[in-house]
Amino acid sequence: MTTVTPSGTTRGPAEPSSDARVLLRPLAVGQATIDAGLWRRTADVNRSAAIPEGLEQLAKAGNLRNLEIAAGEAEGEAIGPIFADSDVHKWLEAAAWEYAREPDEQLLADQLRVTALLAAAQADDGYLDSVPMLRKVPRYSDLPWSHELYCAGHLFQAAVAQVRATGHRELLDVAVRLADHQVATFGDGEGQLREVDGHPVVEMGLVELYRETGTRAYLDLARWFVEARGTGIIEAHGHGPTYYSDRVRVREATTVEGHAVRAVYLSAGAADVAIETGDAELLAALDTQYRSMEREKQYVTGGLGSRWEGEAFGDPYELPTDRGYAETCAAIGGVQWAWRMLLATGEARYADQIERMLFNGFLAGVSLSGTEYFYVNPLQLRSDAHADENRSPAHGRRSWFDCACCPPNIMRTVSSLTGYLATADGPSLQLHQYAPGTVTAPLDGGTLRLRVETRYPDEGRIALHVEEAPDGETTLALRVPAWADGATVDGEPATAGTYARLTRRFAAGDTVVLDLPMTPRLTVADPRVDAVRGCVAIERGPLVYALEQPDQEDGAVVDDLRIDVAGALSDEFRPDLLGGVTVVRARGAVVPGPDEEATTPYRSVTEAAPAAGREVTLTAVPYYAWANRGPQAMRVWVPTL
Amino acid sequence: MTTVTPSGTTRGPAEPSSDARVLLRPLAVGQATIDAGLWRRTADVNRSAAIPEGLEQLAKAGNLRNLEIAAGEAEGEAIGPIFADSDVHKWLEAAAWEYAREPDEQLLADQLRVTALLAAAQADDGYLDSVPMLRKVPRYSDLPWSHELYCAGHLFQAAVAQVRATGHRELLDVAVRLADHQVATFGDGEGQLREVDGHPVVEMGLVELYRETGTRAYLDLARWFVEARGTGIIEAHGHGPTYYSDRVRVREATTVEGHAVRAVYLSAGAADVAIETGDAELLAALDTQYRSMEREKQYVTGGLGSRWEGEAFGDPYELPTDRGYAETCAAIGGVQWAWRMLLATGEARYADQIERMLFNGFLAGVSLSGTEYFYVNPLQLRSDAHADENRSPAHGRRSWFDCACCPPNIMRTVSSLTGYLATADGPSLQLHQYAPGTVTAPLDGGTLRLRVETRYPDEGRIALHVEEAPDGETTLALRVPAWADGATVDGEPATAGTYARLTRRFAAGDTVVLDLPMTPRLTVADPRVDAVRGCVAIERGPLVYALEQPDQEDGAVVDDLRIDVAGALSDEFRPDLLGGVTVVRARGAVVPGPDEEATTPYRSVTEAAPAAGREVTLTAVPYYAWANRGPQAMRVWVPTL
Repeated sequence: MTTVTPSGTTRGPAEPSSDARVLLRPLAVGQATIDAGLWRRTADVNRSAAIPEGLEQLAKAGNLRNLEIAAGEAEGEAIGPIFADSDVHKWLEAAAWEYAREPDEQLLADQLRVTALLAAAQADDGYLDSVPMLRKVPRYSDLPWSHELYCAGHLFQAAVAQVRATGHRELLDVAVRLADHQVATFGDGEGQLREVDGHPVVEMGLVELYRETGTRAYLDLARWFVEARGTGIIEAHGHGPTYYSDRVRVREATTVEGHAVRAVYLSAGAADVAIETGDAELLAALDTQYRSMEREKQYVTGGLGSRWEGEAFGDPYELPTDRGYAETCAAIGGVQWAWRMLLATGEARYADQIERMLFNGFLAGVSLSGTEYFYVNPLQLRSDAHADENRSPAHGRRSWFDCACCPPNIMRTVSSLTGYLATADGPSLQLHQYAPGTVTAPLDGGTLRLRVETRYPDEGRIALHVEEAPDGETTLALRVPAWADGATVDGEPATAGTYARLTRRFAAGDTVVLDLPMTPRLTVADPRVDAVRGCVAIERGPLVYALEQPDQEDGAVVDDLRIDVAGALSDEFRPDLLGGVTVVRARGAVVPGPDEEATTPYRSVTEAAPAAGREVTLTAVPYYAWANRGPQAMRVWVPTL
Repeated sequence: MTTVTPSGTTRGPAEPSSDARVLLRPLAVGQATIDAGLWRRTADVNRSAAIPEGLEQLAKAGNLRNLEIAAGEAEGEAIGPIFADSDVHKWLEAAAWEYAREPDEQLLADQLRVTALLAAAQADDGYLDSVPMLRKVPRYSDLPWSHELYCAGHLFQAAVAQVRATGHRELLDVAVRLADHQVATFGDGEGQLREVDGHPVVEMGLVELYRETGTRAYLDLARWFVEARGTGIIEAHGHGPTYYSDRVRVREATTVEGHAVRAVYLSAGAADVAIETGDAELLAALDTQYRSMEREKQYVTGGLGSRWEGEAFGDPYELPTDRGYAETCAAIGGVQWAWRMLLATGEARYADQIERMLFNGFLAGVSLSGTEYFYVNPLQLRSDAHADENRSPAHGRRSWFDCACCPPNIMRTVSSLTGYLATADGPSLQLHQYAPGTVTAPLDGGTLRLRVETRYPDEGRIALHVEEAPDGETTLALRVPAWADGATVDGEPATAGTYARLTRRFAAGDTVVLDLPMTPRLTVADPRVDAVRGCVAIERGPLVYALEQPDQEDGAVVDDLRIDVAGALSDEFRPDLLGGVTVVRARGAVVPGPDEEATTPYRSVTEAAPAAGREVTLTAVPYYAWANRGPQAMRVWVPTL
C-alpha cells in the first residue's frame, strides 16, 4: 500500500493505512527523470542558482539568524515576518528533493547544518517556531495570524522529503516531536485548544508525516483541523471568515473563496484526509469545489485568485487581466490539490489542470535565470503602468520579497517536478505529463522502464521506447490533453481529454508514439468573463502565449494591437530567443488610442470608432517567458479587429 | 473681492487678497435655492433623517464621547479610528449649511453644544485632536497616519461654515487658535517641523480660514504644505510615496495617482492656493492633471479610483466595473477640485464634470432614504457576488462604517449643493447647474433675480423667469452640457460644451428658455478601457443608467442580458418608482452563461458561441438609484449583441 505525497513522490507508510482510497500510486523518488528540454533547464538553474542563492537570502533576510538565536548560538532579536521559519522549511524541502535528483556533498551538508539549528532551537516539549519564541508571543495565542501551525506544516513536509530523499532522519525526529506536541495540544479533549491556524498547510504536512511514520494520531489531527474549519472557529481579525476559508465547512462548500493560497492549501490537505480515511463524501465535495473553481474562477493560465485585496478569489467570472493577482503560491497549491484529485479519481482533467498550471501560471513566477521572481502574475501589463506598488509586476521580477513565500515554494516545486510525470497501479502505468527522460515503474509482473523521447512542448511527437517490460500484460495509459483534438497513438486516433490505454505484452525495443497536434489555436472566453470580452488568447500545445513589447514589429505598441481572427497563425522555433521558444505569429493591425486632445475615453455610439491603422504581424511568446527582458507591456488576451 | 469656498458659498475675506485670480464669483449663502425635484428631495431627507441620525451615530460610535473625555466631562479611553474627530467636524459643517437653508433652534443648539465640547477639549496652546490627545500619542509624531492636520482641515471648514451660515463665531475661535498653533509649528523656520499630513485636506481648510479671517499666514502655510509635497517628505510606511501623492511635486505632476481621495483633496487645496496667490503655473499644472484624470482615469459615472488596494487611481484606462472602487469621498473631492477649476477658468467642461459627478458617482453613495451609504461605488454587481468583504456593495448599503468618512461627507455636500448652481462676475451671471428654485445675484447695476422652472433632469426644458433685473446690460451665461447636442436657447441653436451667453437689458417678466435634448443615448468607451470592450452605457441627460435586477422582465438575469444597439430606446417617467425616475427601455436578448456541465469558461474560437436566446426588453434606471431595493445584480455597461 502506498500513498500520495505533496511533491509527487512516495514511500510507503510504516503501517499501511487500511482504508486508503488511492486509485493511482505515485512513483518513488528517482523512478522518473527529466533529461532535457524546458523542465530540465528549469531544474538545472534551480539547482545551480536558485537554491544556493536562496540559502544566502535566508541568511541575509535573517531567517537563519532567528534560528541561531533560538538555538542559543547567537544573540539578538527576531527579524522578519512571524512566519519566517516557513521559508527555511521550504528551502530544506527543495534541497532534499534536489539531492535525490543528484547527490552532492555540499547540498547535504547545508541541509544538515540547518536541520541541526532547528533541532537545537526546538523547545524541550517539542514546540518550535523561532520568531514567536524570540518575540515571547504566548504559544498559539494568535493563531489567525501567528502562522505557528503553518510553519509546522512546512517543516513536516521538509522532514518527509529529507528522509525519503537522503535517508537522514534528523529533521524527521524534530518533526515527530513537534507533531506529538500538537497532538497533545489541539483537539476536543479536556484542556485542549479548539483552534485552527489562520493559514492552512499543516493538514498536508500531518498527513505526510502519518504516511511516513504510520502514526495515526497525525492523520486524526489533520482531519480534526479540516473538520473544525468553516464553523466560524477563527476569531477573525482584519478579515471576515471568508478570507480564512472559515465560512462554510469543507464538506459542505460548493466553491472556493477567500484568500486563494489558503483556500487551495486547505483543499489539498482535505483531499489528503479524504484519501487516507476513505471519506467519499469529502472527496465528492472537493471535486465539486474544484469544478466550480475551474469553471468560474481560474485564469486561462491556470492562475488562481482575482483580487489584490485579500489576495482572494473573486466572484464567478471576475477574472481581470490587469489586476489579476494569481499569486505564484496559489498555482503551486492548485497543482498540489489537482495532484491529489488525480490520484483519487484517475480523471484526465486533473492532469490537464496540472499541465496548464505548471507551464503557465506557475512557471511565469520565476525568471529563466531561476533567481528572479514574481509574486503576482497578471495577464496584462500596460505600457505606462505604475511601478510603485509593492509586488507589482510593473517593476519587474525581484530577487526576494519581504514576504518571501513564493521563491522557496518555487524551488521545492521545481525540485520535485519528476513526481508529477507518472503513476502506477497494479499492472498499469499512467503517463500524465510529457518530458524527455525515463520512467521506471514497478508493476505487477515486473518493471516497466520507458525512455521518453520528445521535444515537447515545442513539438508534439512523444516517442516511448520500452527498455524493460514486465512478463505479463501491461496497460500503458497516455494522457491525451483536452486541447489535443486530432491526437494519435501509433497513428490511430485518440480521444482528447482521456487516457489512451494500450494493454498488451510489452517487450524491450517496442516503441509507442503519441502525436499531439501543436497547431497554434485561438481561445475565447465565455461572455461572462467581462474582462476579456472581444478578445482571444493564443495557445499552442500546453502553452498560453502573450504579446510582449520587445517582439512587436516597427515599434507597434502592445496596447494598440488588434488581432485578425480570420488570419492564419504560424509558428517557428527560435533557439536564440528566451532560452529557446516557439513563437507564434498572427495577422493584426494597430489601432491607436485616443489622441492627446481627447478629453474623455467615452463617446457616443453614433460617432465613428477609431479606424484600424496599418497592418502588422503580431509575434507572441510563451507567457511563462515574459518579463525576462525587463518589465514591458504584455497581454495574453488580444482584442480582435 | 470675493473668493471661492469648498462648499460653493462665500463671504468676502476680512482683507481682500489682492493677487487673487478668480474669474467667477460664488454666490453667498442663501442666494440660490432649490425648491423641488431630485436635489430638493435629497436635501430634505438629508435634513430630516441623515443629519439627526448622523449625530446619533457620532454618539453611538464614540466620537462625541472622545471629545467629552478630552474636555474633562467624562472618563474613559478613546474609541474609534485616530481621525474620529473629523467625522464630527464634517457633521458640524453639514449642520451649519443646513441651518442657513432653513434656521431651526434644535439644529443650532446641537451645533453649539458640540462646538462647546471642542472648545473645552482644546489644549491651552491651541492644539486639538481628541484621539491622539487621549491616547497620549506625541503630537505630530506620526503624521503619515495620525491625520492630525486632516482633522484640523475639516474643523477649519466647519468653522467657516458656522460663521457664514449662523453668524456664530465660537468654532471660528477654536479654529483660529488651532491654525495659529500650526503656523507656529510647521515650516522652514528654526525649530519648526518640516512635515506634511499623510492625508491632505488641511490645505483647503487653511485657505478658507484665510478667506474668512484675512490672516495671510494661513494661506502661506497652505502653500507651504502644497509645495513641500512630492519631495519624498513623508517617511512612508505601509505604502510608497505614490499612495501619499508624495512622488512628484504638485506643480510638476502631469496626472493623478495614488490614494484617490488624498490626491483630489490635495489638488483642490492646491487650486485654492493657486487662485489666492495668482500662481498661473500651478493652476496650469492642475489643469493638465485634471485633463489626464478625465481622459484616462475616470468612470463614466464620474467615479474616481480604480483599485481597492490602496483605494487608488489605477493605470491609464484601468477602469474595472466590478472591482471599481470609486469611493464616495473621491467623487466629493472631485467636485471640490472641479469647482475651483471652474471658478479659476470659467470653462464649461468643469461644470459638466461637476454635474456628472454629482448626479452619478456622488449621489449613488447615499440611499433615497438619506441614511444608508455606499463607501464603494462599482459599475457592476454580479448576481452571485460575495457579500462578506468589508465595504462591499454586495452586502448592500450600510447605515455607518467603522471608517465613517463618507456619510458626514455626503451630508455636508448635500447641505451646500445650492452653492454649485451659479456664479456672478461683474455684469454677468453664470448658471452652471439646473434645478427648480431661485437665483438672486448682486451684479453690476443691481440685482438679478431668476426663478428657475424645470423638471430637470427628467425633462430638458429649463425656463428662467426674470423677477428682478439690474438697470444696465446684463449677461446671462447658460451652460450647455457637452452631451446636449441639439440644445436651443429660446429656439435658437446653442453649442454643446459651452456657455450660451445672452447679453441684453433684462426686465422683470422676461423669460428665457433653455431646452436640452433628453433623448436617451448610447455611449461606448475607447478600446483601451479593456473592462468595457464590447459594451455600451445608457445615458439620458446628465444621468448614467444601469440595468438592475428588479426591473427586468420575466426573470431575465442581468448577467445574461445583451443590448441591441440598433434598436430604438424609449423612456417613460415613472412617478411610483424609486422616488420618481425616468426609466429607459432598450431592445435586447438573453444570452445564458455556460451550462452547469461546462468545465471551463474557455473554448476554441472555432466552436460556436453561445446563441442569443429569447428577445427581451431591457429596463434601465438611473445609476444613482440602484441598490434601494436591496443589493441585487446591476450593470452600467451592457454587452452588445
